[in-house]
Amino acid sequence: MSDPARPGPLAGVRVVELGQYGAAPLAAMILGDYGAEVVKVEPPGGDRYRSMPPVREGESLYFMGVNRNKRGVVLDLKSRAGKAALHRLLDGADVLIENFRPGVMDRLDLSIAGLLDRHPRLVACSISGYGQDGPLRDEGAYDLIVQGWSGMMAATGEAEGAPVKLVPAVPDVLAAQQAAFAVTAALRARDATGRGQHVDVALFDVALFAHTLIYLPMLFGTGEPPRRLGSAHPEFVPNRAFRAGDGGWISSGASDQGMWRAFCTALGRPELADDPLFATNRDRLANVAALDALLDAVFATRPRDEWMAALRAYSVPASPICTLAEAIDSPQARHRAMRLSQPHPTLGEVETVGLPAKLSGTPGSLRRHAPRLGEHTREVLLEAGCSEAEIVALEAEQPVRRRE
Amino acid sequence: MSDPARPGPLAGVRVVELGQYGAAPLAAMILGDYGAEVVKVEPPGGDRYRSMPPVREGESLYFMGVNRNKRGVVLDLKSRAGKAALHRLLDGADVLIENFRPGVMDRLDLSIAGLLDRHPRLVACSISGYGQDGPLRDEGAYDLIVQGWSGMMAATGEAEGAPVKLVPAVPDVLAAQQAAFAVTAALRARDATGRGQHVDVALFDVALFAHTLIYLPMLFGTGEPPRRLGSAHPEFVPNRAFRAGDGGWISSGASDQGMWRAFCTALGRPELADDPLFATNRDRLANVAALDALLDAVFATRPRDEWMAALRAYSVPASPICTLAEAIDSPQARHRAMRLSQPHPTLGEVETVGLPAKLSGTPGSLRRHAPRLGEHTREVLLEAGCSEAEIVALEAEQPVRRRE
Repeated sequence: MSDPARPGPLAGVRVVELGQYGAAPLAAMILGDYGAEVVKVEPPGGDRYRSMPPVREGESLYFMGVNRNKRGVVLDLKSRAGKAALHRLLDGADVLIENFRPGVMDRLDLSIAGLLDRHPRLVACSISGYGQDGPLRDEGAYDLIVQGWSGMMAATGEAEGAPVKLVPAVPDVLAAQQAAFAVTAALRARDATGRGQHVDVALFDVALFAHTLIYLPMLFGTGEPPRRLGSAHPEFVPNRAFRAGDGGWISSGASDQGMWRAFCTALGRPELADDPLFATNRDRLANVAALDALLDAVFATRPRDEWMAALRAYSVPASPICTLAEAIDSPQARHRAMRLSQPHPTLGEVETVGLPAKLSGTPGSLRRHAPRLGEHTREVLLEAGCSEAEIVALEAEQPVRRRE
Repeated sequence: MSDPARPGPLAGVRVVELGQYGAAPLAAMILGDYGAEVVKVEPPGGDRYRSMPPVREGESLYFMGVNRNKRGVVLDLKSRAGKAALHRLLDGADVLIENFRPGVMDRLDLSIAGLLDRHPRLVACSISGYGQDGPLRDEGAYDLIVQGWSGMMAATGEAEGAPVKLVPAVPDVLAAQQAAFAVTAALRARDATGRGQHVDVALFDVALFAHTLIYLPMLFGTGEPPRRLGSAHPEFVPNRAFRAGDGGWISSGASDQGMWRAFCTALGRPELADDPLFATNRDRLANVAALDALLDAVFATRPRDEWMAALRAYSVPASPICTLAEAIDSPQARHRAMRLSQPHPTLGEVETVGLPAKLSGTPGSLRRHAPRLGEHTREVLLEAGCSEAEIVALEAEQPVRRRE
């Protein structure tokens, strides 16, 4: 576990999250991991992610995966008292993050423009499937759907097969990271000018932006979108997944001539490097079917770990194609503290992912378990200056459905 | 094109990039998009990405995809004069971003610890495949290899097929975004304390972190890593890609009972919703093969666009599985300004991706084309306080291999 005594770089930043499901909660969690104080505001029924299985003693594991380092408050934003309490929280906040469908905040009489009028120093971030405007603005969106719209699935899969869904849920994660960045950048502008602003992040936009590495430049230059190639590279051969004799898989390849020679030597077939059919990358591209068959036969002769050792011995880039279970328990992941645990009031120690970036001075920390529904309503509202009478009235008005 | 008169939130932040290939250049570009002044320092031979095809009149399209909004300087960091010039640049910089293999900066006598000693207000960010420490630290890493190590490829592909590579290059993009966030957060700490720090971002770590949405919590709770399911969901049926009668593909599905009924109605098969074989999600999961065959036959009867219209008419989430060419030219992408162009001194107008987050107050902008090799060496070094004599001496010492 990280050292809670060393605060993160965002210590002192106060975030109010109105998040459901994945993207906005993950964005707020990243801010919390690096020191921000996050208050998650949920409706009386809770973030819908709380009911997603697997559930352990009333707590959804999916929910816990994206909600650590937050306190949890229940407010019914349809009620006047709930709205008033939200404004109290925003009076003391630097950041609001929400991922309602576009238009919902307006219907709650909590339009972003109105919030910025009333709280001019606030950085208000909206995350949505397609953005706050445009012809798709009101369409339903989740991971699978945005992967379809954004060119990801069409380019992922076997050449002769169907489009394949990317694992993990890439558009949500990209949106969460982009939101965390843009909010932090907007705080810098706020500190300089005194004025907050609206940050509009769309899963669709960031999914398209992700292709600026390799695939959009290729499209702009040649008119050709990427096509499904299994694990292969469109230009460098060999570069793909190989199945070893024990059924395990390896990613490896050669992107230049020196590496091609090392690759052949590691495979125990140094003569391949000089075979005129495969001598240059151009030759290998032209004769890829013959080379694929030959390499498949070679890899089938030894188990995965022996091939990994052989390829490493010749400094050929290679990886075992690990399951996520192997990956998270690999020596490197252990060394990098990517599997941590933290105490939870009802579940004992709960496992959680490590911090994504390592900062030498202000490293961030695990300080709080994912909150139970309404766990900190009273504590947070008292801090925000609500009176005991206000809180009692609020609780009477809100039919909170706690899970415990 | 964005409005260059409205600076981004990072206006005034000065970044020195020592980047090659994808991740570090993309991280620095994101900072530049949002207003930072980025100086890209390249060796006399240039970032190796400059030679990646497709190349247009000496300029690599891949390179241009991740290097806009920067000026370009050539320094031979193996020479004393080159090192001295780098220190001049760092004297006036807030951020350094590099992605040499771990150990290379030390061998150049430019260790991060030494740089932070000499430039204590600097935020120095290293991006690497596996991080600055751990047993894999010195291993070669690129997209395909890290996708193998991190559990991505093992979970992506058809159930009976081989692991499939994710498109786009997800680990590089996640690392670039995480670096942009962590650097911006570290600047906030620097402004508060006066002290910079080292930010260590690994493709491997962020690729694992990405699974904290859905897949790691599932693994922690059940011991089961995600497995390859094509485009299908492990728990909600139906939810996948469907092939329409014209060969086009659609992503769609139903995650609750109301949506299941709407889905059946949209398909013109309302009676399916009440079929006891498929009545509940549990039934559909148990009889998934029968349902898949039935739905495949239904989708084959009409073309993609007719099914899209039918699904939308019943508010069922759905997307056409677009090629990247369709995606970037879709009405939503046009509306969201995701395909832009900017002038280039030798190539005329060059197409480039739009900005990933929309900020209402300080939106960021396209201000500079991707620099030609050494295009701004003299200009930047003069600004940094180098004398004409120093620059002449430096140029004499550096066998710059310009491409034009």
